Amino acid sequence: MKIINLDHLSANPLLPEVQDAMIDAIKENYGNPSSQHKIGDKASEALEQSRESAASLINCKAPKEVVFTSGGTESINHAIKGVAFAKADKGKHIVTSNIEHNAVLRSMRRLKMMGFQVTSVPVDEFGRVNTDDVAKAITDETILVSIMHSNNEIGTIQPIKEIAQITKEKKVIFHTDAVDSVGVVPVDVQELGVDLLSFSSNSFYGPTGVGGLYVRRGTGVWPLLDGGVQEHNKRAGAENLIGIIGMGVAARLARQDMESRISHVKNLRERLLSELPRYINEYIINGHPEHCLPNMVSVSIKYIEGESVVLMLDEEDIAASTRSACAAGSLQASHVLLSIGREFADAQGTLVITFGVDNKEEDITRFLSVLRDAVKTLREISPLYREALQA
Amino acid sequence: MKIINLDHLSANPLLPEVQDAMIDAIKENYGNPSSQHKIGDKASEALEQSRESAASLINCKAPKEVVFTSGGTESINHAIKGVAFAKADKGKHIVTSNIEHNAVLRSMRRLKMMGFQVTSVPVDEFGRVNTDDVAKAITDETILVSIMHSNNEIGTIQPIKEIAQITKEKKVIFHTDAVDSVGVVPVDVQELGVDLLSFSSNSFYGPTGVGGLYVRRGTGVWPLLDGGVQEHNKRAGAENLIGIIGMGVAARLARQDMESRISHVKNLRERLLSELPRYINEYIINGHPEHCLPNMVSVSIKYIEGESVVLMLDEEDIAASTRSACAAGSLQASHVLLSIGREFADAQGTLVITFGVDNKEEDITRFLSVLRDAVKTLREISPLYREALQA
Repeated sequence: MKIINLDHLSANPLLPEVQDAMIDAIKENYGNPSSQHKIGDKASEALEQSRESAASLINCKAPKEVVFTSGGTESINHAIKGVAFAKADKGKHIVTSNIEHNAVLRSMRRLKMMGFQVTSVPVDEFGRVNTDDVAKAITDETILVSIMHSNNEIGTIQPIKEIAQITKEKKVIFHTDAVDSVGVVPVDVQELGVDLLSFSSNSFYGPTGVGGLYVRRGTGVWPLLDGGVQEHNKRAGAENLIGIIGMGVAARLARQDMESRISHVKNLRERLLSELPRYINEYIINGHPEHCLPNMVSVSIKYIEGESVVLMLDEEDIAASTRSACAAGSLQASHVLLSIGREFADAQGTLVITFGVDNKEEDITRFLSVLRDAVKTLREISPLYREALQA
Repeated sequence: MKIINLDHLSANPLLPEVQDAMIDAIKENYGNPSSQHKIGDKASEALEQSRESAASLINCKAPKEVVFTSGGTESINHAIKGVAFAKADKGKHIVTSNIEHNAVLRSMRRLKMMGFQVTSVPVDEFGRVNTDDVAKAITDETILVSIMHSNNEIGTIQPIKEIAQITKEKKVIFHTDAVDSVGVVPVDVQELGVDLLSFSSNSFYGPTGVGGLYVRRGTGVWPLLDGGVQEHNKRAGAENLIGIIGMGVAARLARQDMESRISHVKNLRERLLSELPRYINEYIINGHPEHCLPNMVSVSIKYIEGESVVLMLDEEDIAASTRSACAAGSLQASHVLLSIGREFADAQGTLVITFGVDNKEEDITRFLSVLRDAVKTLREISPLYREALQA
């Protein structure tokens, strides 16, 4: 059974080179990088090589500024809670946006339960924040701004560099959740000027459960995990070395193949967008037409449920999703889609397609044809559709 | 170069079956267990199978009570900070012991910076806490007791069941750091009666960077990682599935082979202890003679530096350590050894030997002979030794 994966957002497959490196690492049976003897030396070398590779991918000149974590969620929690706790005596106000990932939103909610205040700036119909709104939201009490680099449901890319100029001027720490950007589009921490940047290995075909947090030197942030002296005292605990080695190789390949990968998924995306009108009608493409991820299409299809489409695609061996896997268990409408002005019903009729290196042009054709039938079937039984026809 | 590993505390090698399972998982290229289509179904099955296996190892009847984490350190941070934050409105007092692992100690230190009070009970000369001390330390403000199951430097096992009876009576949440016990000696959460129990995959020959936290149903503890709905809402973030699969197999084998493994390391330990007097003199064996891990020997050798012995053993391809790898970067004397009454100099002269399934009897002979030479050489240049001889 060959499944067409159009849900790379949920999980990217491991690249063969990444698989090989991880298998070698398993067979090598590395020791503990922190141990005091030579079994640990090889482990330590492998660890630092991966760190250099990950640092290069985000153009970080000092690999020590990259902290390995158990994934994007930990990186984000570490950044947000770490700054909040470290700076609580200076102020308890944080600025974020309305369309952040659950890891950000729920970290904020948690901090609110602990006495912090959070201002969430709105986004426009394309999902972009207005930098003036961010500037205005910052008060003397503000200790942190956290705005995502790209959105995980609609792909919109934010004006991070411009926001960083504001936070720098106002001396507020700036974190960006770049989980869906790093390894997918060029991300350069020097150019962006952020203090903290979260990323995840699986976004660039490394293993899940591994990620990184870029911490610009001098940024006041507490560890989330206290204990041993690993990760330059920024993150305690024995490292997931096999995963980190996989991420290192994935990062190297992502940097090397960035251009060709972008061009590959961009072609698929453009083809999908240009052919879609021939297959279905009455839909809305979500996200910014220009400032957006090249590998993602979010489409709100009127009068139907996205969940039902996903199930019908699944039956035909096509994997797609209605939103990020982290939120898949939830029944609420996407806060991202509501924030860009989608009606509740349209939000529920949304499909998120994410392309990857393994997709081919014929995947689009097959998807479109199954989608057409699914939409037709679902609309036939849709009371919303019947009402619309009668109106 | 065949290295004799007498530092299983730093890193246990992966068992062949664990390696195979992880390699299969890498080749299988599982999806995201939370995704909405069939790519995710297989991942979800593999995840839950590992959970059952891990739960069985600690005799937990409801696998849902096991939360997968990125290792022992995360489990411990999750338990301690999670209870502290969740229960802060009820009280801000925590009870622990003087000989906990750095992950516990530093989590406590962090909480102190946030306004919590910590009472640390002493231990006797063998490293055991007195249950009466624990009972007396609990006040109306106490929300958590955290006492380790076994000590990671001297191997002493604490009277956890007795402490649990006290905490149950006083309605205080009880966490035990069982990182060095689970998979090494029988650990039964039902029998122990604890509310939270931390463990780590590598302790039983699974991969590093993977662990678990047992959370008895109904225990009030906040997630450390907020975000998606993974792990029954207790721990957000895409799972390290390859690592978790490795841990699952390791847990199954640990349960199956527990008895023979214990008998194997116990033999080695007894042989080392019985032969040691023929090779060196003036040393102290640390830890409890009876309530102790079967795989560990902590020996404080007078007039020398443990670090130097480790280096000399390393030159002869024998891996040993002076303490847990998590603390290896630190220059301070072990708080554990000082707590059981060792002099500073003796604490610095301590060697921790941990046995594993890969050790053979001849490893002991080889180690003892290299140790004898190392101690001889080091004492010849030791000013302490010269003083002692002249006294």
